[in-house]
Order: sequence, then structure tokens, then C-alpha cells
Amino acid sequence: MSAIKTWIDEYHKGSRFGLNGEILIKKNSKYQEIIVIENEYYGKALMLDGCWMTSLKDEKYYHECLVHPALNRIDKKSNVLIIGGGDGGTARECVKYSQITKIDLVEIDEEVIKISKKFLNEIGGEAWNDKRLKIHIDDGVEWVKKTRDNFYDVVFIDCSDPSGFSNLLFSDSFYKDCKRILTPKGILATQSESPESFKNIHLKILKTLKNIFRISETMYSFVPIYPSGIWSWTFASKEYLHLSQENYNEAVKIEKSCDIWNLNFQNAAFKMMPNKIIKELNS
Amino acid sequence: MSAIKTWIDEYHKGSRFGLNGEILIKKNSKYQEIIVIENEYYGKALMLDGCWMTSLKDEKYYHECLVHPALNRIDKKSNVLIIGGGDGGTARECVKYSQITKIDLVEIDEEVIKISKKFLNEIGGEAWNDKRLKIHIDDGVEWVKKTRDNFYDVVFIDCSDPSGFSNLLFSDSFYKDCKRILTPKGILATQSESPESFKNIHLKILKTLKNIFRISETMYSFVPIYPSGIWSWTFASKEYLHLSQENYNEAVKIEKSCDIWNLNFQNAAFKMMPNKIIKELNS
Repeated sequence: MSAIKTWIDEYHKGSRFGLNGEILIKKNSKYQEIIVIENEYYGKALMLDGCWMTSLKDEKYYHECLVHPALNRIDKKSNVLIIGGGDGGTARECVKYSQITKIDLVEIDEEVIKISKKFLNEIGGEAWNDKRLKIHIDDGVEWVKKTRDNFYDVVFIDCSDPSGFSNLLFSDSFYKDCKRILTPKGILATQSESPESFKNIHLKILKTLKNIFRISETMYSFVPIYPSGIWSWTFASKEYLHLSQENYNEAVKIEKSCDIWNLNFQNAAFKMMPNKIIKELNS
Repeated sequence: MSAIKTWIDEYHKGSRFGLNGEILIKKNSKYQEIIVIENEYYGKALMLDGCWMTSLKDEKYYHECLVHPALNRIDKKSNVLIIGGGDGGTARECVKYSQITKIDLVEIDEEVIKISKKFLNEIGGEAWNDKRLKIHIDDGVEWVKKTRDNFYDVVFIDCSDPSGFSNLLFSDSFYKDCKRILTPKGILATQSESPESFKNIHLKILKTLKNIFRISETMYSFVPIYPSGIWSWTFASKEYLHLSQENYNEAVKIEKSCDIWNLNFQNAAFKMMPNKIIKELNS
């Protein structure tokens, strides 16, 4: 008997993006509805509460752009925090850096990790077995609140769009806590939504981080399964960032393992702000 | 009575991107099925033979990136050819340049122009009344064949994806004819598909233009309603391109009228080739 195929769509402002395939799991966790579907082009894809999160085919567009621009622009990077990131992709890119000695991954929904390990294991891959990775089932906002000052060299915010339980991850007080727990030369790296399909949230994140941190820079690239396909990542720090010779050498090696990101791509992506967003930020 | 809303989807390798709205027109021309739908976010949107072509909301992502990187890197630009471009967007960006004295727009399907003027008039706008614009209902491949050598300063290929009647617009012989009809310092500008959702065609275009022209450069940016949202444009010429002081001054003025493109964006977009495409081209 062949598998039953169905359409699963994400709806967004009168548009929809759907994948056809066999549903591998559909389950309500304590926090959200979780679906994994197997699609002929995107491979296995994860949807949370009606929004596409990741797929085997396009996850590198997202994870490589969140991780490497942060890690190659700071010198000390032993202690890393990932808030969200239950699919394991951010952790997988992090473990490429030998200087990292500990990664705290704080995911609120244990089911996301369980399902990712079972159905999307290619994304986390060997990172799930890396001894430096510590998984904590906890609320990222609370985790950050209870962390002592100057603790993490990098904080990654790898979360879903603002909604219900993830709203606080986009608040002033949360970003201020992130700043407090960062080392003086540390960096905050966050996905910062689409300048097209989530323009208002995008502008709010940029303005808020600019107010709180001395430095805040946004890069733009592609995530095919997200609404509009345009996505952004913002990197904030208390000091100016630079690419040291040591980091350059490491980045050149890491490029070889990457599908999307390389150093030229990174430098360019920081200049891809659409002109209308520049105008809005300057107005 | 309120309008009847329906979903219209473009299907692509097991995925679909749909817009909901009222169908303003649905008609079979001699060449293709033409649909215009009114959507709450994208505004009026045009579909040809099941593929989204353009929408009021996102058309500038496409047209600004096709036109300006060509026109600001050549000095002489009096005589311009647009193959396809029946929605009028490419012509609209061209008429911003006062040096241009004649634009031949060669569109095979008269219905596309009629429907664009009637339903999507905001795209072509005043360009439709510009005396420099000459509309020819003709086959672009035949038009190029019968054009004398060294005739156009710029040739824009503003066509739909390869299929039936548009296949020849992606052939070696067509590109060679384009080269022949270009002035020695002229430039060919073409949309070159998505490196993600049309990877094989994309690679073929890049390799073919590299073989035929001395210079060929590809830029990557966003078109939200196209499959994957990642799109590319390739610019080919017989001589090295540069940005003269005069062109720079003009570009700075034109930037003000643009939603997406500016000179920084342009320079960056030429470096946004995904790493996996670089690897494939070098293998």
C-alpha cells in the first residue's frame, strides 16, 4: 500500500505555502501542534502551530546564517547558550568550533527535541551525541533571568515567530537580560524575522537591539520555506566586532562544510537591507 | 454582494504557493492561460500558465534588480531592447534614464499587455505613455534574429521560465544572437532563475553565458512570490563593466525612487551566490 499524501499549508496574510507528502507524525504537545511531513523536494519538514520551522532541504539557509557570523567575529567562545533550537541545527553548526567547551541548549518543548531526534535526525546529527551539548527543558526567558552576569560568550535566539509563549523572547526586558549575561566581548545572535512578511516585528527588533546594545548589525538572506523567503538575522554586541586572522583561518576551513554560507556571502548579506527598510529606519 | 474569494496556487515539485482573492480575469490567450487575482497582501497578482509572474506588492524586487545593475554600468545607453516584459515593469525602470532614446518592447502575447494595462496599470504606469517606448507584438527569438549587428546598447530578457514557447529564449543560439546585436560596450541582462528551485536551468544559463561572453556576472536577491523566493539575474558583456562617476551620480538619484535596489545592495547581491552553487560551478 502506498503512503497517503496530503497537503499541509502555512497560511500568512492571504497567502499559503504548502508541502505535499505523507504525515509522519502529528501531535499536540503541552505548547503546540507538531507535524512532520515527508515531501519529495524539501525532504522531511517540521511545522509548529501551523508555521514551517525547518526542512532537510533548506535548513542550512537558516542555521549557517545564524551561527557563523556570530562565531567568526568574536575571539573567545567557550560558553554558548542556544534558546530554542530544538531541531538541533544550530548546535550542529556550533560544534564545528573546537574552542567551544559548553553549549547550553534551552528548549521549552521537550517534544520538539524528541520528534527532531526521531524524524529529523539528519539536522542535529552528531551534535546530539557531542559531550559539550547540555540539553535543558526550560523556558528561555526564565533561564536567562536566573543566569549570572557575564556568563556566556554567545547567546543564540533560535525561536519561532512571536505568538503566545514565544512573545517574551521579543521583549525589551529579555534582550536586556541577554546583554547582562553576555561577557563584555560577547555577542547576541538572533533570527530577526522577514523585512517583507513580518515588517513591523522586524523593524521593532532592529530598533530595540540598536537601543540596548552599542553595536547591532542585520544580515539578510534566504529561507525558502518561510513566508516571503526573505529572512534576517541580527547580531548585537557591546563592542565593535572584527574578524581576527585566527578566526579567518578557521572560517576558511568551516566554509568547506557549508552549503550556503561563506565569508564573502556573509559580508554581502550585511548589505542586503532592502531600500524601503533603510528609508523606514531613517524616517 | 461581496466578491467570491478563491485560492489560486502555483505548484512546484510537491510544494505550492497560493494567493487567496477575487479573480479579476481568467482567460486563455493564443499562448497561455492568464489569471489576475486581487489578494489582500500582494495586491493584484498575475499568473501565466500556472506560474506567478508578478504582483503589485513584490514586483519591484524583480524589476529593479533586472534593470539598474545593467544601466548603471554602461556609459552609452540610447537604444534598449526588452524581450518579454509585457507587464511594463522593466520599461518603467528604464524610462528613469534620460539618456535612453528608444525602447523596443517585444512581447509575444498581446493579451499580456492588454491585461496588464487594464488590471495592473500601476506596474507600467507612465511608461506606457512614454514616447520612447515602442511596443512590438512579436516573437523575441525572431526579433533578435532579424536585428542587424551592433544595434542595441542593452538587451533585457524579461521572460517566464523555460516551457513550450519560451524554451528558445534559453538556447545557445539565442544568446549568441543577443551578443551579435549588442554594441561593443553593450550589456545583456537576463533573469536567470532560482539557484534553489530551478538549479539545473540556473547552472546551464550561467555556464552558457560564461562561454559566449567575455564577462558574465550573476546577482542573487529575493522575489517573494517565485518558487523558493531566491532569484537571480545575470549580466553579460563583451568588455569589463564599471561604474563611471556620471553613472554613480545618476544612480544615487535613482536610488531615491527605488523600494529594494540601491548601489550597496547591488554590489552585495553580486556576492550572494550560495556556497553549494560555487562548489558545483567549480567542480
